[in-house]
Formats: sequence, structure tokens, C-alpha cells
Amino acid sequence: MNRKVAVNLAERSYTVTIGAGVLDQLGPTAAEMGDVQSAAVVSDSNVAPLYGAQAVESLRGAGVGAELITFPAGEEHKSLATCGHLYDALFAISPPIDRRTVVVALGGGVVGDVAGFVAATALRGLRYIQCPTTLLADVDSSVGGKTGVDHATGKNLIGAFHQPGAVLIDVALLASLPDAELANGLAECVKHGVIRDPALLEFIEDRAEEILQRRPDVMAELVERNVAIKAAVVSADEREAGQREHLNFGHTIGHAVEVLVGYGKVLHGEAVSLGMVAACAMAVARGLIEADPARRVEALLKRMGLPVRREGLSADAIWDIMLHDKKARGGQVRMVLPVMLGQVATFEDITPDTVGTALKALRP
Amino acid sequence: MNRKVAVNLAERSYTVTIGAGVLDQLGPTAAEMGDVQSAAVVSDSNVAPLYGAQAVESLRGAGVGAELITFPAGEEHKSLATCGHLYDALFAISPPIDRRTVVVALGGGVVGDVAGFVAATALRGLRYIQCPTTLLADVDSSVGGKTGVDHATGKNLIGAFHQPGAVLIDVALLASLPDAELANGLAECVKHGVIRDPALLEFIEDRAEEILQRRPDVMAELVERNVAIKAAVVSADEREAGQREHLNFGHTIGHAVEVLVGYGKVLHGEAVSLGMVAACAMAVARGLIEADPARRVEALLKRMGLPVRREGLSADAIWDIMLHDKKARGGQVRMVLPVMLGQVATFEDITPDTVGTALKALRP
Repeated sequence: MNRKVAVNLAERSYTVTIGAGVLDQLGPTAAEMGDVQSAAVVSDSNVAPLYGAQAVESLRGAGVGAELITFPAGEEHKSLATCGHLYDALFAISPPIDRRTVVVALGGGVVGDVAGFVAATALRGLRYIQCPTTLLADVDSSVGGKTGVDHATGKNLIGAFHQPGAVLIDVALLASLPDAELANGLAECVKHGVIRDPALLEFIEDRAEEILQRRPDVMAELVERNVAIKAAVVSADEREAGQREHLNFGHTIGHAVEVLVGYGKVLHGEAVSLGMVAACAMAVARGLIEADPARRVEALLKRMGLPVRREGLSADAIWDIMLHDKKARGGQVRMVLPVMLGQVATFEDITPDTVGTALKALRP
Repeated sequence: MNRKVAVNLAERSYTVTIGAGVLDQLGPTAAEMGDVQSAAVVSDSNVAPLYGAQAVESLRGAGVGAELITFPAGEEHKSLATCGHLYDALFAISPPIDRRTVVVALGGGVVGDVAGFVAATALRGLRYIQCPTTLLADVDSSVGGKTGVDHATGKNLIGAFHQPGAVLIDVALLASLPDAELANGLAECVKHGVIRDPALLEFIEDRAEEILQRRPDVMAELVERNVAIKAAVVSADEREAGQREHLNFGHTIGHAVEVLVGYGKVLHGEAVSLGMVAACAMAVARGLIEADPARRVEALLKRMGLPVRREGLSADAIWDIMLHDKKARGGQVRMVLPVMLGQVATFEDITPDTVGTALKALRP
């Protein structure tokens, strides 16, 4: 029995379907969207050989003409140049795509963001379906409509809000995921627990072994609980004007770590894990939370295979990058900090000193 | 006294202000948008030397930090590559832009479309102000939120719907416009008359001489009447699901003529003029309108300095291009035809033969 989570956004509402084998429902899902002429499945060089044919066959089996177009895997290809190649491929499809063509994003977070942005901008906006293939994409980027690519000066600086028409999360695909990629997604799961749901933290603690073994029923429940949190936050604040900012917990310093170390040299989840440890240390230093809950979060991240210490993070360099983040406002850095487990708030009085103090917690 | 037209789109509503000298209100207009940190004025190599400093000074005078960024003029620069350069320039501004930065599009249709698309996609969407400098942009592209760039395989294939926060139309700028550029805009004015407003056709006929001399008061009234029509159509159908399609009158064959002749070798308005003559001929051939109104439209276009005949338009080539237009649906070509002056309808039974017949009307 598949699990379903609704994302409520008025006329942009959609359903997230979670279960083992749901990729085979891609064709019927596309057909049910109505007035669908054809589909373009966008994937990368890692995922296309594994699941591309399955996706295309499901679409064709439902009477939807489908073509597979791909780009090289890797965060360094999350670029405007890749979009240029994808537009070329999209507009070369015969018969030509039109406004009834649906884009399918088949892959991890990079594929979802890039394909979603191409869908948002081809013919001024095509409908699209997210078929995430990594845990990180399952619980984070596939839901919420954030699309985009990186710019030389920062992550996700070019993009659009464009909600998918449907999201299909096949937890059977997690079986082949490398351990580091699994941990990558688990960082976001811990984040959701810290910002909204202490019971989710308990669930991850209790089922840690089964999660690390990727037991499909446990993964389906884990993904459903996380998607429900993400969906609730996004439904309340589609364009990040308010509480959606809470999802940035661990990401302000995390993004800066990614920029400093270099995209591709540290996984997003690893950087977010370090960012959460630093943010918790900052919350302890400010007297927002006790040391115990901070230690509990750190222990859980470690149990999930995530780094909680890292050498060589210069406080000055991190601060400089934070100042240039697109979420900074007029040179003011904002950070989301826990006020208790399951609840966070945004703080605007972040100084280089407080960041320096927080970064000390990351020293080996 | 300036003229104002409201574009009603719920929380995306905005006001179009029309008058001689309104470019000097750019600064106060930006400041009134609220929570504005800075502005990036995007212009091209033709317009920036003429009005760039005036725009920047108006902004700074209102306490809004402003930088001017430019790209080479010409339809051939309405491209993803130009966007890449503009993102580079935008993200190099210091202090860094953030979500409170407003983009100003200062120029003709190409600038408005490109700057609007950059605004739609930088930091996942910045607010922007349209300051059109040509009659075509005044009465057509500056209102309605269509943004985008061309792709090698077709016009405006990459883009987004992104409504401006305000539109300032300074009719004093029309004084320096080349005659051919004036005619370019007049084609859209005639179009608006044919699709919605026979009285507008009369106005253009009666004031033809003053229009061709660009008398500011007459131009302000002309622009206001046209913007009112465009605003009403856009308010009723923001995303081109219904009556907004009526604005494509003359554009289906017109776009094909542009592609066939080559962008930059025929002005948009010239192509649309030919497209309207052909569409009227098609309407006469189908018995939708009499020959008299078709002749009247043709005479008015000619009076406005627009071409109504052109050699060397192969019907086969035009048809092939029409089939690949993004507005074609699954290989079906749709055309907007007049059923009387001031009223049009969309027809889906367009065949190569009917296009061939219509194109005969364009033979010298």
C-alpha cells in the first residue's frame, strides 16, 4: 500500500506518492494530469542507465510519447550551460514539444533542480513530475518547487519557484544508493526533527539500524514523515517569506562550508551536518538550549554516518561567504537556531564573533 | 497630468504610468514599492548612453543605490548567453544584491524581455520595473509579464511569466525614435484596434499626421488606449490560456516571416503588419469579413509606414515554421482571425492550403 502526502497550494496543489515500485506508476500519473501530449525525461549519466528505460517504458505504456535526455552527473554540471544543452535537446525532439509536454525529473537533487528549472522556463513553463532517486531528493528537494542552478559566485543563485504536478518517490531505488549518499539524506531527516518534530528524532534513533540497512517499509515511513513536515512548511509559506526559512536550519554555515571546501568536495548533507552542529553550539552559547539536546543531535548525526568535526574552517572565510549568501539582507546575516528540540526561530543579530565561537565546536 | 492604467492580477497587480517625463519618477516609484535595498538598471548599448544616467540619478536621488549594467543592442543578443553575462554582472555588484533588489528594464522590447527574465530567475525572482523606450515596448511587451529569450530554433522559447511591479512609459522618449521603430509599434496599435476596439482604429486614422509627428499629448492618449486594451486582456487571462491568445493576431504568420527572413532583417512590427494583411485575407477567403474592412486595415498599416507586400515568402517554408511554433499544439496550427473589426476568434482548422492562399495577398 503506497503512502500519500498532499502539498496544499491552491491551484498548484499536488500529491507525493511514496512506496516500493512507484516509478512504474509514472506513465499513468502523467496521463492523469490531463491534456498531456508527450514527456521529456531528464536524467543524468549516473541515473539514466539504471532507471531511464523503466521511466520511458512506463510513459509509453500509458500512451504518452517519451524521450530521454541526459546530462553529465555532478554538482559542477548544475549550471546555466547544462540548461543550454537541455534546451537544445528539448527543442530538437520530434514531433516538437508543446505546452502539453510534461518534463520528468529522474535523479537526485541536481537533476530535480536543473530539470525543474528547465521545465519552469521552456515555453515559459511546462508541467513536470519529480521522480527522485536519492534519499536527499526524496525528503528535501523533490517537494516544494524550488528549482535552479548554481552560479560561479554561489549556489542556486539562478532559479525559479515552480511546483511539480506530482512527485513519485520509489523507496526501492534506495537499495543501490552509496552509503555516503544515504547519510546525505539522513542529515535533512535529522534537521526536520530538530525544527518541527522531536518524535521523528526518536523514530530515527529507535530504527537507526533498519534505516542504515534501508529496509523498504522503514524507509517508506521515514520518507513519509519527512515529506509531511516539508509539505506542511511549504504549504504555509510557498515563497520563503516566513516559516519556510526554518528549513535553512544548518544551511547558513553549511552552505558556507560547501563554498569554502568547494562544491563536490563535501556532500551537501555532510556540510549541513556540520552546520547543524555549529548552529546547536551557537544556541547553547546563547542559552537558548541546554548542552544535552545539542549533544543528542550530534550523536544522532554521528550514528547516521555524518561528520560532526572538520579541520581547516576559517571563521573569517566562512563569515565572508555568509555575507554574500542570497538570503543575507543588505549585509545582515540571519540564522535559524533551535530554541528547543522541535522548535526553531530566526535570529538577525549574528556577528562574526558568534560564528567564530560556533565554529570552535567543529574542531577535531 | 500623467495617465494611469491599472493591471488587475490580484496580488500581482500594478500600475502603468504614462506621460512626458515620467522616467524621472523612477526613483520614487522604486522607493514606494517598499523594502527596496538597491536597484540594478539593465539596458542595452543603444539606450544606456541616452537615458542610463537619468535613470540611475532618479534612483539615487530617492535613496535607492543603483548600478547600470548593459548588453549589446540587437535581437541577436536576446539569448541565454546574454543572460549569463547579465547574471555575472548582477552578482558582481557590491554591496551584493539580495531579495530586496529591484531590477529596472530600461530599453525596447529586447531589453524588457531579457531584463524581465533575469529578474524572474535571479535569486529565484526579483521585483522589476519596466521603463520602455520604444513605442512597441510601450504598447506591447512592457505590460503583461511575458519575459524570455530566443533559442536557435525559435523566438521566446525560453522564458517565464513574471509581472513587473510597475511600468513607467515616458512618451517624451519617442521623439528620438527612428521612423521604422515608430512604425514597429504602430503595427501593434492597429492590431489592438482590430481585435478589440474599432474606435481606436478611427483614432489612429484621424490623428495619423500627429502620430507620425509624435506629438506628446497625442502619443500619450494613443499609448493609454493601447495599454488599456492590453491590460484588460492580460487581467482576464494572465497565462495565455484563453483570450490572451487574441493578442497573437497577425503574429502566427508574422513570427514565421521573422524566422524565414531572419531575426534582425525584418522588424517585428513589419512582420506583424504582413501577418495581419495575410490573416485578413484568410478571413475574407473564409467569408468571416468583407473585403472592405480588410482593405481599411491594409490602408491604415500603409499610412503608418508599414509594409503590406513582400516578395519571396515561400508558403511551404512558412507552414513548416508555423508547425514548430511553441503555440502549435501537437502539430495543429491555430490562428486568430477577425470576424468583424474589433472582434476576433481562434481557428484550429488551419491547413497549408489556406496559408498558401493568404500569402498570395502579400505578393507585390
